[in-house]
Amino acid sequence: MDVLLLNGPNLNLLGSREPDYYGTQTLDDITSNLTKIANNVGLTFEHHQDNSEAKLIKYIHNAVDNGVQYIIINPAAFTHTSIALRDAILAVGIEFSEVHLSNIYKRENFRKQSYFSDIAQGIISGFGPQGYEFALQAAIQHIQQLERL
Amino acid sequence: MDVLLLNGPNLNLLGSREPDYYGTQTLDDITSNLTKIANNVGLTFEHHQDNSEAKLIKYIHNAVDNGVQYIIINPAAFTHTSIALRDAILAVGIEFSEVHLSNIYKRENFRKQSYFSDIAQGIISGFGPQGYEFALQAAIQHIQQLERL
Amino acid sequence: MDVLLLNGPNLNLLGSREPDYYGTQTLDDITSNLTKIANNVGLTFEHHQDNSEAKLIKYIHNAVDNGVQYIIINPAAFTHTSIALRDAILAVGIEFSEVHLSNIYKRENFRKQSYFSDIAQGIISGFGPQGYEFALQAAIQHIQQLERL
Amino acid sequence: MDVLLLNGPNLNLLGSREPDYYGTQTLDDITSNLTKIANNVGLTFEHHQDNSEAKLIKYIHNAVDNGVQYIIINPAAFTHTSIALRDAILAVGIEFSEVHLSNIYKRENFRKQSYFSDIAQGIISGFGPQGYEFALQAAIQHIQQLERL
Amino acid sequence: MDVLLLNGPNLNLLGSREPDYYGTQTLDDITSNLTKIANNVGLTFEHHQDNSEAKLIKYIHNAVDNGVQYIIINPAAFTHTSIALRDAILAVGIEFSEVHLSNIYKRENFRKQSYFSDIAQGIISGFGPQGYEFALQAAIQHIQQLERL
Amino acid sequence: MDVLLLNGPNLNLLGSREPDYYGTQTLDDITSNLTKIANNVGLTFEHHQDNSEAKLIKYIHNAVDNGVQYIIINPAAFTHTSIALRDAILAVGIEFSEVHLSNIYKRENFRKQSYFSDIAQGIISGFGPQGYEFALQAAIQHIQQLERL
Amino acid sequence: MDVLLLNGPNLNLLGSREPDYYGTQTLDDITSNLTKIANNVGLTFEHHQDNSEAKLIKYIHNAVDNGVQYIIINPAAFTHTSIALRDAILAVGIEFSEVHLSNIYKRENFRKQSYFSDIAQGIISGFGPQGYEFALQAAIQHIQQLERL
Amino acid sequence: MDVLLLNGPNLNLLGSREPDYYGTQTLDDITSNLTKIANNVGLTFEHHQDNSEAKLIKYIHNAVDNGVQYIIINPAAFTHTSIALRDAILAVGIEFSEVHLSNIYKRENFRKQSYFSDIAQGIISGFGPQGYEFALQAAIQHIQQLERL
Amino acid sequence: MDVLLLNGPNLNLLGSREPDYYGTQTLDDITSNLTKIANNVGLTFEHHQDNSEAKLIKYIHNAVDNGVQYIIINPAAFTHTSIALRDAILAVGIEFSEVHLSNIYKRENFRKQSYFSDIAQGIISGFGPQGYEFALQAAIQHIQQLERL
Amino acid sequence: MDVLLLNGPNLNLLGSREPDYYGTQTLDDITSNLTKIANNVGLTFEHHQDNSEAKLIKYIHNAVDNGVQYIIINPAAFTHTSIALRDAILAVGIEFSEVHLSNIYKRENFRKQSYFSDIAQGIISGFGPQGYEFALQAAIQHIQQLERL
Amino acid sequence: MDVLLLNGPNLNLLGSREPDYYGTQTLDDITSNLTKIANNVGLTFEHHQDNSEAKLIKYIHNAVDNGVQYIIINPAAFTHTSIALRDAILAVGIEFSEVHLSNIYKRENFRKQSYFSDIAQGIISGFGPQGYEFALQAAIQHIQQLERL
Amino acid sequence: MDVLLLNGPNLNLLGSREPDYYGTQTLDDITSNLTKIANNVGLTFEHHQDNSEAKLIKYIHNAVDNGVQYIIINPAAFTHTSIALRDAILAVGIEFSEVHLSNIYKRENFRKQSYFSDIAQGIISGFGPQGYEFALQAAIQHIQQLERL
Repeated sequence: MDVLLLNGPNLNLLGSREPDYYGTQTLDDITSNLTKIANNVGLTFEHHQDNSEAKLIKYIHNAVDNGVQYIIINPAAFTHTSIALRDAILAVGIEFSEVHLSNIYKRENFRKQSYFSDIAQGIISGFGPQGYEFALQAAIQHIQQLERL
Repeated sequence: MDVLLLNGPNLNLLGSREPDYYGTQTLDDITSNLTKIANNVGLTFEHHQDNSEAKLIKYIHNAVDNGVQYIIINPAAFTHTSIALRDAILAVGIEFSEVHLSNIYKRENFRKQSYFSDIAQGIISGFGPQGYEFALQAAIQHIQQLERL
Repeated sequence: MDVLLLNGPNLNLLGSREPDYYGTQTLDDITSNLTKIANNVGLTFEHHQDNSEAKLIKYIHNAVDNGVQYIIINPAAFTHTSIALRDAILAVGIEFSEVHLSNIYKRENFRKQSYFSDIAQGIISGFGPQGYEFALQAAIQHIQQLERL
Repeated sequence: MDVLLLNGPNLNLLGSREPDYYGTQTLDDITSNLTKIANNVGLTFEHHQDNSEAKLIKYIHNAVDNGVQYIIINPAAFTHTSIALRDAILAVGIEFSEVHLSNIYKRENFRKQSYFSDIAQGIISGFGPQGYEFALQAAIQHIQQLERL
Repeated sequence: MDVLLLNGPNLNLLGSREPDYYGTQTLDDITSNLTKIANNVGLTFEHHQDNSEAKLIKYIHNAVDNGVQYIIINPAAFTHTSIALRDAILAVGIEFSEVHLSNIYKRENFRKQSYFSDIAQGIISGFGPQGYEFALQAAIQHIQQLERL
Repeated sequence: MDVLLLNGPNLNLLGSREPDYYGTQTLDDITSNLTKIANNVGLTFEHHQDNSEAKLIKYIHNAVDNGVQYIIINPAAFTHTSIALRDAILAVGIEFSEVHLSNIYKRENFRKQSYFSDIAQGIISGFGPQGYEFALQAAIQHIQQLERL
Repeated sequence: MDVLLLNGPNLNLLGSREPDYYGTQTLDDITSNLTKIANNVGLTFEHHQDNSEAKLIKYIHNAVDNGVQYIIINPAAFTHTSIALRDAILAVGIEFSEVHLSNIYKRENFRKQSYFSDIAQGIISGFGPQGYEFALQAAIQHIQQLERL
Repeated sequence: MDVLLLNGPNLNLLGSREPDYYGTQTLDDITSNLTKIANNVGLTFEHHQDNSEAKLIKYIHNAVDNGVQYIIINPAAFTHTSIALRDAILAVGIEFSEVHLSNIYKRENFRKQSYFSDIAQGIISGFGPQGYEFALQAAIQHIQQLERL
Repeated sequence: MDVLLLNGPNLNLLGSREPDYYGTQTLDDITSNLTKIANNVGLTFEHHQDNSEAKLIKYIHNAVDNGVQYIIINPAAFTHTSIALRDAILAVGIEFSEVHLSNIYKRENFRKQSYFSDIAQGIISGFGPQGYEFALQAAIQHIQQLERL
Repeated sequence: MDVLLLNGPNLNLLGSREPDYYGTQTLDDITSNLTKIANNVGLTFEHHQDNSEAKLIKYIHNAVDNGVQYIIINPAAFTHTSIALRDAILAVGIEFSEVHLSNIYKRENFRKQSYFSDIAQGIISGFGPQGYEFALQAAIQHIQQLERL
Repeated sequence: MDVLLLNGPNLNLLGSREPDYYGTQTLDDITSNLTKIANNVGLTFEHHQDNSEAKLIKYIHNAVDNGVQYIIINPAAFTHTSIALRDAILAVGIEFSEVHLSNIYKRENFRKQSYFSDIAQGIISGFGPQGYEFALQAAIQHIQQLERL
Repeated sequence: MDVLLLNGPNLNLLGSREPDYYGTQTLDDITSNLTKIANNVGLTFEHHQDNSEAKLIKYIHNAVDNGVQYIIINPAAFTHTSIALRDAILAVGIEFSEVHLSNIYKRENFRKQSYFSDIAQGIISGFGPQGYEFALQAAIQHIQQLERL
C-alpha cells in the first residue's frame, strides 16, 4: 500500500445527508475517484473511515508494516481533540497531509486549533472533495521524490 | 422510536456506587420510570449508556432512520471534550436537551465548558434524576407541537 | 408562603412585546398557571417582578420571615452583573433554582457568566415558560423531602 | 414625543461641579439648547437624568407608548455595567445613539467596554456637550428618513 | 456633618443573621459605638445603609453640601460592580476609606477586583467591626491635619 | 489650510461599489459638501485619500507648515494596525478627530482596537457621511475657541 | 484577465536566495508554469509581486474592471498584519484562495493568525510551489462552475 | 489482584519503534520485571495497554470487584484530553500514581496540563521504565500501610 | 514576646529618604510608639527589619519558641515575590496582619498580587505609619480574645 | 562527593511541625536513610538545607569542584520563584531531579509553575520522603550508566 | 558599503520638532558623526530614512549586492507592526542591531513587543543618539572579527 | 565613587565556565578594562558581584553616601524576579543602565519581563562584555552633563 487515506468521525454521512452543504458526493464517490488517480500513476491506495479513535490509531500503527509511504488524513472533529492520534502519526514517522472539506477558519473558534497542523507536511482546508485530490497530488510528488533518491 | 435517551461514560455506575452522592437509584430505575411516563402519553422511548464515544455516535447516526423525534443526552465527561459527538448531533439535526445530574457549575472549572449547550434546545443541570423527567416533559411538548403543525 | 418566584428586569414586557421570540404568554399567564400547580399540592406561591435590584434584594430578605422554603429566580440581566443579589440569597440561606427562558449559551459571550449558578440547586435554561414549571416541580420535591425529615 | 434623551448616574452634577473638567454648562443649559434645535425642525424632545438603573429602564419601556422615534443615551457609568439597560433598549427596538462627554478611550481600561456600542446606530465620545448636538442631528436625519418611506 | 459612614447592600442583615460568621453585633451596635468615638473628639458622625445604588449615590452627592470631610464606605457587593458609586465619590472629591468586614482576598475570585481601592486613601479588610474603628481613626487624623493647615 | 481631512485605504471605492452598504455618495460628493460647510464659516479645507501609509504620513508631516489647525482622519484599516500614523500625528501635535463610517463595534473583534482613539479629541463611529460633518463642526468650534484665546 | 496571482513582500527573492529552504525555482519559473496550465484550459493569467501594501491594494481594486474571476494570493508577511488588504479583497467581492509556500503552523506563533483565512474559499499551506498549482486548479473549477450557471 | 498497571494509547509500540528515544525495552520486558518485584513482596500484579478510552474505563470499573488496591496509570495522550478516564478513577476511589516515561515538562505546551495530577497520590515523569518501578514501590508502601491499619 | 513586627526590604530607609512621600518618621520613631502602645496593655513587642528573605524566614521560625501570639508584617517588595515567606508563616501557624504604608492599589499592576493576603487575618494598606497602629490594635484584640477562651 | 541533596526554605521544620501533614520524620531521619542507601552502592552523599537562595546557589557552584555527579533538589518555595537557582544549575551542567514531598498539583495555582521541571531529568511529586529514595535510585542508575560509558 | 543604517517612519522629523524631548540633533547631525567614526576605522557607512515599509525592504534586499556587513536599524513604529521588514532582514541573513532613541519600556504597552529583538544581535534602547554610536561600535567589532577569521 | 557596577547571581562564573557561550573573559578581565576607561576620564569605578539579593540591596543603599552618580546593573536572574532590588534603586534615585550579556529576547519567555527596564535610563542586551562599555560611556556622558549644569 502506497497511500493511505483516513477519515475521522461523522464523515460516513457524507453525501447522504445535508447535500446542500457538503455536496452530493458520497465518500465512496470520492475514494473511487482518488483510487483511479493513484492507480494511474502506478500507486496503490487504501481508505478507511471510522468514528472510533482507537480504530484510526490502529490503521496508523499498521501503516508501517503495510509499506504506506504517505498518509492523507481528515481527522474531522478529532483535529481539535485527539492528541492520541497525533502521537500515533508521530510514532510511525510517515509524512502526511491534513485535509478539511470545509474552511475551518470560517467556523467556531474551537475549530481553529489543530493537533496535526504543526507536524503535517501541509494543510488544505475549504476546497471540498477537490482538497483530497490536491493532497493526493502532493503524495504522488512526495513518493516520486523519495524514489528518485 | 420517538424519544432517545443517551448517557455517557461512567453513568453505568449510577446507584451502585457512591449512593450518598448520586442517590440510590440505578440507571435502570431511572429509565423504567421515564419509559412509563413516555408510554403514558403514547410515545416510545429508548435508552443507551455507553463509555465509548464511537458507540454513542452510532446511536445518534441511527436515530434518523429510527424516526427519533427528540434526543435527551447526558454526555457526562464527553460534555467537555467531544466535538465528535457535537458534530454527530449537528449532522442528524434532531432537537435535543442536555442534562447533568449534578450542578456542573459547582465543580472544577473545566466542567464549565460544554460542546453541547450552544446547540441544544435547553440545559438542565443539578436536579438529579428529576432532571431527566424535566427533559422528557420538554421532549413531549416538543413532539406534540410538531404534530400540531 | 412556601415558594417565591422572582423575575428580574425587563421581564414585565413578556408576552406583550416580541411574541415571535418570547411567545404570547404574559407573566400573568405564567404565574397563574404556576400558582395553580403549587396550590394543587397544597403549597402557597408568590411572585414578584422588578426592574430594581434593591427591590429584589428586599423580597429575598423578607423571604425568611415569610417562611419561604424555596426560591425560583430568573435574574434576567442581573444574572451576569449583580453580586448584591447573590449575596442576598446567600445570606438568607434558602435553596433556589436559576431559570432562564432563552438558552443563554446561544447568546452573547457575556451571558455565559452567572453569579448564581455555582450556588443554586440547579439551572434550567432554554425551555421558555415550561422551565418555570420544571423549577416548581423541583421546589415541590425539595419541600416534600424537607417535610419527610 | 419624538426624541428622548437619557442621562445616567452623576450627570446631574454637570456644570455645578468640576467646571474645569466638564465645562460650566449645566444639564439644564444643554437640554434647553437641544430642545430648541429639535423644536426648530418640528420635533418634540424630552429629557431625563437619573441615578437609578430601574428608573432609566422605565423611561425606555414607556418610550414605545410615548411614540419615541429615537433615543439619545449617555449611560455614564452604566455604560460598562448595565446589561439590564441594554436589554431594555433591545426590547423596545428603537434606534439610538450612545454619547459620552469625555473621550472614554483616554481613561481607565474598564471604561473601554460598553454594553451599548454594538447595538447602537453610532457612538460619539469626547466632544463635550457638542456631542449631544451631533446625536440630535443624527436623530433628526433618522426620523426624516423614516418619514420619507 | 464631619464623617459619613455608608454601608452597601445586605449589611442591614448584620448581627441578626449568620452570627457565627459575622458576629452578634448589629449595624446599630457598631454605629452607636462609632458615633461615641467621633463625638468624643468633637466630630459629628452620620450613617446610612442602603441596598439601592441610587440612594447611596445620593448620600454621596449630598455630602458636599452637608460639609462632610471624610467618608468611610463598605460598598459590600457594589465594591466589585458599581462604577456609578466610584464616579460619585470621584465627583465630590472627598477623601475616603474602603472597609470590608471579611477578608475579601480569602473569598471568590471576583471579590478581588474593587472599583474603589485605587482611588481610596486606604483599604482595611478582614478585621470585622474593628475595621470601622480603624477607618474612623484615619478619618479623625485626616480631619485634624486639615484643620491644622 | 485650516482643516485637513485624511481618508485611509479602500475609501476611494466609496459610492461606486457596494452602494447598498455604504450609500451612493462618492468621496467627491462628501468632500465638496464639507468644503462648502467649511468655506461658509471662512475656513479652508483640504482632503486626501490614500492607500499608502507613507503618503498619509507625509500629509500629516506637511500639515504644520501648511498651517493646519485641525485634522479629521478616517484611518480605515490603518486604525487597527498603523503605529506609524499614530506617531506622525503625535509628532505634529495637531488636535484631531477619528471618524468611521460604519459602527466598528458591530464588526470583527480586531476592529475594536484603535491606535488613535486614546490620543484623539473624540471619536465618531457609525453615522455614515454625516459623521464627517460632526467632526467638521467640532473642528470649527475648536478653531474658533483657539482664535478667541 | 481570468485569474490573478498576487505575491506579497520578499517573495521576489524566491529561488535566488536560500535555495536549500525555498527550492531553486524562481517566481518566474513558477508563474510561467502556472500561465501554461491556465492557458491550456483557455483562461488568461496575470501575476504581480510587490513589497508595497498600497500597490497590492491597487491590483485588487483594478481586478474588477479587468474582469478577474478568481484571485490567488500569497500575502506573505502581510497575512498577519494587513487589514487593508483584507478590506480591499472584501470590497471587490472576488472569490480567492490563500496560499503559503511553507507550513505556517510550524513557525513562530504570530504566523498562526491570518487576516485572510476566514474570508477565503480555502487555504493551502506547506506544499511549496505545488500549492499554487492546487489553487489554480481550484480557480479553474470555480470559473467553470460559474460558467455553467 | 493487588496492583493494576494501565498504559494508554501508542504505548504498545514501546521498544519496537524509536529505540533511540524510548529505549529498547518493550512493554513486555517492563511488565515482567514489575510482576517479579510485586510477587516478591507477595502482591499480585496485572497489566493492560489499550488505545481505546472505553476499554481503559472498563478496566478501572472492574478494578473494585477485582480487589485492586492501587492503580499505576500512564495515560499517555489521554493525560491531557480524557475527563472520562478521570471520572472513572474518581468513581472507583482507588489510590493511584500517574507515570510518564518522558519528562512532559520538556515537551509541547499542551502536555503540561493533566486531568490526573490533582487527584493522584503523586506524579513521576521523565525517568523512563524506572518510573514504573518507583510507582510500584509507592504502591507497595501504600498497601502495606493499609494492611497495618 | 507577644507581638512580632517584621518589616521587609528597603524599609530601613524610612524617614531618612523621600520624606515628602513617606513622611519624616523613621522606623525607630514608629516602633518606639508601637512598643509603648503594646506595653500599655501589658504585652511585649519586638521588631526586625531585614533586606534578606532568609533572615525574615528565621524570625518567623523562631516566633513559635519565643511565644509570639501575633505577627504584624509589612513584606514590602517580598509581598509580591516571596512564596518562601508565605510558607514560613503558614508553617508556624500564627495569626498575622499584612500592612502596607502606601496604597498598593494605586501603584504598578504587579503590586496588586500578594502572596500573603489570602492567608492573613486582614490587610491594611495606605494609612502610613497609622496602619501599624491599626494592626497592633487588631493584635491586642486577638490576644485578649485568646486569653478569654 | 557523588550525590548532592539540596533542600530549600522551610524544610528545616520537617518532622518537628505539622506531623499530621508532613509525617514525623525529620530531615535528619530522611538524610541518614539516604546516606545509607548511597553508601551501600559505594557512593558518597551530601546534604544541605538552607532558607537562603544565595547559599543554595553556592552549594551548586561548588558542586563541580566537589565532583558531584547528580543533584537531587527540592527547591520548596523557590521552585516557583527562583530563576537564579535555575541559572546556577544550568551553569554547572549537572544532571538533576526535582522532588516535592507533597503533590504540588493539588495545591494553590501558583505552585503549578516550576522553573526547574523543563530542565530536570525528571520530576517526583507527592510521595513524601519516599520520593527522595526514588530520586536517589535514579541518581544511582544515572551514575552507573556514566561509569559504564 | 560596510555598515548600513536604516531609520523608520517619522524619524525625518528628528531635531526639527520636539527638541525638548528628542534633543536638537537632526538626523543629519547624527549620521555625519557616525560616518566620521566609521571612516576613521576604514569602513564605509550609508544611511536611509524612510516612512515607507516597501522602500526600507528594498534597502535591505539591496544590501547583499552592496556588500553590507552589518545593519543598524531603528524601525521606529515598524518595530511593533512590520513582519515584512523582519522577513526581509531574515532573508538577507546579515547581522544587525536594533536601536531605539527613547526607552520603549517606559511607554505604551504595545511598544513592548518587537518583531526584531529575537533575531537581532542585540538591542539598545533609551540612550538617544548615543545609542547609534554603541551600535556602530558593535558593528565595527563584528566586522573586525569577521575579517580576522 | 562615581560609577558603580553591580552584577547579579551566577555572573561570578563568567569566563571560567561555558567559554564557548559566554567568551573567555572573566569578570575580573571585564572590570579592570572598565576601571581603566573610567579612570581615563577622571572617574572612579567600583564593582560588586553577588548572588545575594540582600547584599546587592545594601550596595545600592550605600551608593548615596558613597557619592555614586551612576549605576550600571546586570541583575541577571534577578531581572525577572526581584522587586526588592527595583525598590532599592527607586529609593536612592540614582540614574542607571540595565545591561545583559546575552540577548534576553532570544531566550525563555520568562526572561522577557524585567522589573528594571521601565525605570532605567536605557537597556543594552546581547552585546557581551562590550555592552558594559556602552553603559559606561552612557554613564560618563551622563556625569559630564550633570557637571556642566
